[in-house]
Amino acid sequence: MTPSPRLSRAIEKGQDWSCAIRQVMRPLHTNMYGTVFGGIVLSMIDEAAFVEARRHGMHKWVTACFDRVDFKRPIRVGDTVSLYTRTEKTGTKSVSIEVCVEVMRYDTNVTEEVTTAHVTMVSVDPDGNPIPFSHPATL
Amino acid sequence: MTPSPRLSRAIEKGQDWSCAIRQVMRPLHTNMYGTVFGGIVLSMIDEAAFVEARRHGMHKWVTACFDRVDFKRPIRVGDTVSLYTRTEKTGTKSVSIEVCVEVMRYDTNVTEEVTTAHVTMVSVDPDGNPIPFSHPATL
Amino acid sequence: MTPSPRLSRAIEKGQDWSCAIRQVMRPLHTNMYGTVFGGIVLSMIDEAAFVEARRHGMHKWVTACFDRVDFKRPIRVGDTVSLYTRTEKTGTKSVSIEVCVEVMRYDTNVTEEVTTAHVTMVSVDPDGNPIPFSHPATL
Amino acid sequence: MTPSPRLSRAIEKGQDWSCAIRQVMRPLHTNMYGTVFGGIVLSMIDEAAFVEARRHGMHKWVTACFDRVDFKRPIRVGDTVSLYTRTEKTGTKSVSIEVCVEVMRYDTNVTEEVTTAHVTMVSVDPDGNPIPFSHPATL
Amino acid sequence: MTPSPRLSRAIEKGQDWSCAIRQVMRPLHTNMYGTVFGGIVLSMIDEAAFVEARRHGMHKWVTACFDRVDFKRPIRVGDTVSLYTRTEKTGTKSVSIEVCVEVMRYDTNVTEEVTTAHVTMVSVDPDGNPIPFSHPATL
Amino acid sequence: MTPSPRLSRAIEKGQDWSCAIRQVMRPLHTNMYGTVFGGIVLSMIDEAAFVEARRHGMHKWVTACFDRVDFKRPIRVGDTVSLYTRTEKTGTKSVSIEVCVEVMRYDTNVTEEVTTAHVTMVSVDPDGNPIPFSHPATL
Repeated sequence: MTPSPRLSRAIEKGQDWSCAIRQVMRPLHTNMYGTVFGGIVLSMIDEAAFVEARRHGMHKWVTACFDRVDFKRPIRVGDTVSLYTRTEKTGTKSVSIEVCVEVMRYDTNVTEEVTTAHVTMVSVDPDGNPIPFSHPATL
Repeated sequence: MTPSPRLSRAIEKGQDWSCAIRQVMRPLHTNMYGTVFGGIVLSMIDEAAFVEARRHGMHKWVTACFDRVDFKRPIRVGDTVSLYTRTEKTGTKSVSIEVCVEVMRYDTNVTEEVTTAHVTMVSVDPDGNPIPFSHPATL
Repeated sequence: MTPSPRLSRAIEKGQDWSCAIRQVMRPLHTNMYGTVFGGIVLSMIDEAAFVEARRHGMHKWVTACFDRVDFKRPIRVGDTVSLYTRTEKTGTKSVSIEVCVEVMRYDTNVTEEVTTAHVTMVSVDPDGNPIPFSHPATL
Repeated sequence: MTPSPRLSRAIEKGQDWSCAIRQVMRPLHTNMYGTVFGGIVLSMIDEAAFVEARRHGMHKWVTACFDRVDFKRPIRVGDTVSLYTRTEKTGTKSVSIEVCVEVMRYDTNVTEEVTTAHVTMVSVDPDGNPIPFSHPATL
Repeated sequence: MTPSPRLSRAIEKGQDWSCAIRQVMRPLHTNMYGTVFGGIVLSMIDEAAFVEARRHGMHKWVTACFDRVDFKRPIRVGDTVSLYTRTEKTGTKSVSIEVCVEVMRYDTNVTEEVTTAHVTMVSVDPDGNPIPFSHPATL
Repeated sequence: MTPSPRLSRAIEKGQDWSCAIRQVMRPLHTNMYGTVFGGIVLSMIDEAAFVEARRHGMHKWVTACFDRVDFKRPIRVGDTVSLYTRTEKTGTKSVSIEVCVEVMRYDTNVTEEVTTAHVTMVSVDPDGNPIPFSHPATL
């Protein structure tokens, strides 16, 4: 399964995108309109951001901020959903992650971008206080 | 169950907050740290925004944008979570909704604010095209 | 979201009803007939009774008896379900709770009563033995 | 897996009990106390009553009343839960079903009764109106 | 609910089949085709094998191998699924279990075989090392 | 996230492995031992095989046979699970798929192989009869 043309070009140009989460949608995931419930998409974005953050250190990472999620197109039952992530910016105790949600449509096998999001993840110690993620893992 | 002091004061001053969603958290809802998974909170926020949007018309409403969710404190198993919503701004085809997530802590019965979010909901026709929500319901 | 006319009148007359649980129904919650599975309604009633019981003390509360649940009307996908509770009677170690399940119909925005139930909750110590809920919390 | 001694004796004396539902409990099913959530038990009872009702005809059956559920003992993760049902009384359009919930304890392999319930199921036509279940199936 | 004619005959001839798991299928369990998701069936087979293995000792049992699952027919919403198990072979530290999945069809009340499987379960000590299941339980 | 050394070498040598499914495990997915429930793993394998099969044509694909699943190591909460698939053999109406389940351990960030499986998927027409997958899609 390959990323959309836009993402493929970004990867060719050197952006470090990787596939963090991939799942097939079932009726279990739908809302009252028969398309995938937005909350399911948001859950997968949160999970994908965690996977990306862990690349920066084996700390406990928590979601600090979740912003500008744009739902461009609905996801449907049977679609295979891929969440691609890359680190946009690294601070000392937090990282800024871009998440791109793409689907391979069940009825056409065509890949489409459906949602993008920006998530800030913070590395914390066991008590939940932010700590530099360059420190040894506090897991 | 009453809102937090801050929300109670806002209501007294005339802001139109209502309780859109209320649920008790179970182990089912947790992440690897034993606290409530961020994706569950995001799902409830999405659902709450839908409930608020429906007050403006019985259209099909879809989530267009989900921004600035601040996770201030974790939610724990046993906590009763309440999502309060109010309409911040109404356009012709969309509404801007503020969502305030509060918990009544299981171990103290104290109410705390845990997350806030801002969601834009759009009223659409059966084909998914935005339509004025002052129009008759197209459900 | 306001309670049904009947419940609103009861509140006006001084009955202490509060909203314990509120959720929107999705296809996930349905049975083979496409309406909401009775087991889901019963789960929400159990949860609502717990929320009401906790108002009487921060003990561990367990469901002792669940009786006379009348399913008057089906709940459908898209309906917003509200569970209103009030304490009917308090003993020393148990409380009797009335639960009223109402929906705001997705296709009409009209509020209807769908189910009522009576639940007995018992406060217990960590070993599961009933204890007076006027005692200090044993949580 | 055999029923408890009490149920075994009832079967020997000619009562028509059958196993309607059997499942193993997982952490997914627990409440904040780490035991099985009452709502899960109620869901299984509802499902078991449906299985028993279907023995009287291939109609659409709906839960009309759910009463006197006594929770005698908690169910724990790892326990195998069996719901035994029998028809107590048959009307023209409804049947009265007794449900006995038993567990085989994970840590002892001993069978114990944990809950009993009485459920009334009604046979209805496609519009939800009660109909005699001796009539041809209206499925 | 009685087993299929083939299984009934096997039982009459002395094979030791018992019902390990029984559940009613809901929309929650479906795949994109509207029939029951294969993963749900595989989950129930795994659970059934565990129930059968536990008859040989109260050890911790883990799934070692899962082979030759034949999906003969689809399962549909409303069908009551029964998983019958028998021990085919016992080793010192493992048992070989045959699982037969049957459904009572919702629309005909006819029982059909839908899947068979063979599962090897191994008894292990708390560290996960295989141990003879004739030994005292290490639970 | 990169595949295990063994899989990486196989890819270098020209085997066509791709990541079909990737997910993070939560308490929701556990069994009574606190590790990931085997049924969850089997569900993901089934889903992964479907994703691989779809590469051969946009038909309806059903699981025909599921064999030789070897559970080598347990999966734990927090682990990121990746299911890599490749087509082993193609017939006219069916394909043979190898599925390799790997985890990135939460507490070490090390990648380990945990399970392998072989699944046969069959392309069928809308009535469920096998059809050559070289034919135009019958979706």
